[in-house]
Amino acid sequence: MICLKKLKPLMEMRLSQEALAVDANMDRSYVGGIERGEHNITVVNVIKLADALNTKPSLLFEKAGL
Amino acid sequence: MICLKKLKPLMEMRLSQEALAVDANMDRSYVGGIERGEHNITVVNVIKLADALNTKPSLLFEKAGL
Repeated sequence: MICLKKLKPLMEMRLSQEALAVDANMDRSYVGGIERGEHNITVVNVIKLADALNTKPSLLFEKAGL
Repeated sequence: MICLKKLKPLMEMRLSQEALAVDANMDRSYVGGIERGEHNITVVNVIKLADALNTKPSLLFEKAGL
């Protein structure tokens, strides 16, 4: 899951893990797992996170260097 | 799965569905399902597809308007 750790920079853009979890309608522990690169998340969840962060999936990936 | 249909434009960049499936190390029927927006694919698979297409995940999403 190394590649998913590259998505971690998205967390720099968040309000808080709790707020992001609420806005993305995800469990906080799941969001924490994403942050730690433990999950191979789906495109639908990437879109949810991007929406919650008021950004686009393409920009999330770009920021993550992917 | 409407959102995944937006990834369909990536298929315009491919060689053929068969070649893409081989290069991405995926089953051809699975790639066909992605093309039809039937699967909620994971980030790892997005990266595989992007690699097979010699592009980046961020550019795939951008091309898909996401």
